[in-house]
Amino acid sequence: MTSPSGISRGREGPVIDIGNLPGHSVELGRDTPLVLDCGTPLGPFTVAYQTYGELNAEKSNAVLVCHALTGDQFVAEPHPVTSKEGWWEEMVGLGKPLDTERYFIICANVLSGCMGTTGPRSENPETGKPYGLDFPVITIRDMVNAQKLLIDHLGIGKLFCVIGGSMGGMQVLQWAASYPEHVFSAVPIAASGRHSAQNIAFHEIGRQAIMADPNWNGGDYYSRDTYPHSGLAVARMVAHITYLSESALQRKFGRRLQDRSEVAYGFDADFRVESYLRHQGITFVERFDANSYLYITRAMDYFDLTEEHSNVLARAFPETPVRFCVISFTSDWLFPTSESRALVHALNAVAANVSFVEIEADGGHDSFLLDVPELHATLTGFLNGAAEHRGIA
Amino acid sequence: MTSPSGISRGREGPVIDIGNLPGHSVELGRDTPLVLDCGTPLGPFTVAYQTYGELNAEKSNAVLVCHALTGDQFVAEPHPVTSKEGWWEEMVGLGKPLDTERYFIICANVLSGCMGTTGPRSENPETGKPYGLDFPVITIRDMVNAQKLLIDHLGIGKLFCVIGGSMGGMQVLQWAASYPEHVFSAVPIAASGRHSAQNIAFHEIGRQAIMADPNWNGGDYYSRDTYPHSGLAVARMVAHITYLSESALQRKFGRRLQDRSEVAYGFDADFRVESYLRHQGITFVERFDANSYLYITRAMDYFDLTEEHSNVLARAFPETPVRFCVISFTSDWLFPTSESRALVHALNAVAANVSFVEIEADGGHDSFLLDVPELHATLTGFLNGAAEHRGIA
Repeated sequence: MTSPSGISRGREGPVIDIGNLPGHSVELGRDTPLVLDCGTPLGPFTVAYQTYGELNAEKSNAVLVCHALTGDQFVAEPHPVTSKEGWWEEMVGLGKPLDTERYFIICANVLSGCMGTTGPRSENPETGKPYGLDFPVITIRDMVNAQKLLIDHLGIGKLFCVIGGSMGGMQVLQWAASYPEHVFSAVPIAASGRHSAQNIAFHEIGRQAIMADPNWNGGDYYSRDTYPHSGLAVARMVAHITYLSESALQRKFGRRLQDRSEVAYGFDADFRVESYLRHQGITFVERFDANSYLYITRAMDYFDLTEEHSNVLARAFPETPVRFCVISFTSDWLFPTSESRALVHALNAVAANVSFVEIEADGGHDSFLLDVPELHATLTGFLNGAAEHRGIA
Repeated sequence: MTSPSGISRGREGPVIDIGNLPGHSVELGRDTPLVLDCGTPLGPFTVAYQTYGELNAEKSNAVLVCHALTGDQFVAEPHPVTSKEGWWEEMVGLGKPLDTERYFIICANVLSGCMGTTGPRSENPETGKPYGLDFPVITIRDMVNAQKLLIDHLGIGKLFCVIGGSMGGMQVLQWAASYPEHVFSAVPIAASGRHSAQNIAFHEIGRQAIMADPNWNGGDYYSRDTYPHSGLAVARMVAHITYLSESALQRKFGRRLQDRSEVAYGFDADFRVESYLRHQGITFVERFDANSYLYITRAMDYFDLTEEHSNVLARAFPETPVRFCVISFTSDWLFPTSESRALVHALNAVAANVSFVEIEADGGHDSFLLDVPELHATLTGFLNGAAEHRGIA
């Protein structure tokens, strides 16, 4: 079924067979539930994760990759739903900066996600039905605390590196703030110490679009034969614009038309940029849960490392032993360089070991996912230096 | 009725009693229909307009103000639906840059608008019912051609000035390109010679949000007791973010909470910026027609002065006699200074009389609507000089 706008409006949500996902999953918090920031104890809960490479005998070569808002644990292999290549194959693999011959790479689906880790689509043990909006609102710190339990479960005392872009970078910062003795090095890319007003505003648009879709039904759509396709597609479309730079949009699409030589004087997708955005919306709803989108955006909005430190970011990292590599991109207007600079100033203020690179790239916020040679070179250099200090062969 | 998201979802559309609007209206195109860019002849059609001040004996002091996407003819008086002050009272009035004691100010609701000028909500003479999507898609040039008929009707041979911001600035440029002998001076503010890919993308989001609302019903909602409130509100919210600068959002709202001392761990409007955006959405649907929103955004998307000139903007203004004052704002990321600069380069290439000012202002695209002293000073200076040359007392 196709709506007048061209957005597919199927009746069912994404079909993800959680039981048959590749990779690993572990039940955590059975004996001692994880007490979330909102005060709710959660447990037992499942964390689905994937690993690449081998943990060395010293358990010193583990790298935790933290995924972004719509990412998942399938970093360096085809996505089990879309069959597209892993979201960070640019960076993770044989001979890549995160070389799977040298490092043991771990990536876990975040708490409240929809790829195997417990989230709003999971069964609420109290009712035997999916949580929906009864799932507790989680924070970036909750996500990181769940990851810490996973790392404990794997018997890893200290991560060689925690790395991630965007929301992944927020988790990196939270790791460094919460568990400085368990992190040797940290690489927050295109991130920020707290979510800005503009970014909260864009997230709120996405949530409003989802919640305005009658098929959302107050978050209770799992047992129905409807799904808030249209609302989630609009949410994805607006987010997607913010991931690209104006110049990249101009270069990739400009005002070029889609399969026509002149405008059609109508509301069909005349322009390629429209067609591209619609495609982004349609394909996203096939792989993502609308309620997870609400929860994860909310976690990002709530992220503010300064909050409990009288608005002084530096106080989140007192006497930190962590080696930082902070990276931003010139064309990223969602997490602009000024955010990374504020972070570097804070780390300088506590005399942290921090290097900072603003990389010239016109791909916008999404540059961290793209083939950007300077990003490769920066990461390779930093990781090599850190590995040497850590004594990794 | 309130949706779970807090956006008002009334059953009826905006209640605008067209018959009782203040100001004037005129029927045009009765004898000779206006042939639109899409090829459709339109006529007769109504143009609703408002005037301030008096036309002098020489008919040399007429200023045409062109309104932006969601503006209307109520420039300098309370809005008849919302009772809020006119959208450009900063600029138009006694002692203001557009002094009503000196100039005769005209502003017409654009073609496809919803404040009295013929648009998708108007009655289709062929069916006796509102046009809905049967209304022909119009362009900025169609809007300007309709305004030209109005100016002819008023017996004005040459406008002293055509001025406007954003889509108003597009109309200004189209006036200068189409009717250079009928324009003495032109002031495009925060505008562009063609709509960018990013701006098309943002408009497409708004349209998708409207068309995804089941109450939109393919554009045919006038005879129903439903209205696409939710979709239109989301469209307005996303557009509204693009009108503000990141720094203005940070300064006005930052991460401050709304009527609470800590976050509520839910999807209510915890942050002031969320509450503000929701308010923008809710109040907008009370005064604007959803189909008009589709049509007017489309007209902006189609705007490209270079198209019929082998992509050379300068060729739109050969030997132009018009005196231009081009204005942009430092914090405007929707119509950035680079767009105005391209315009100035084009005008320079045809040796036009052009002055250009990039004004330091942190209000973003909306700066043209705000109390920006340098904007006042720039306009007053330019208009005084032009008025002297035009021999206006």
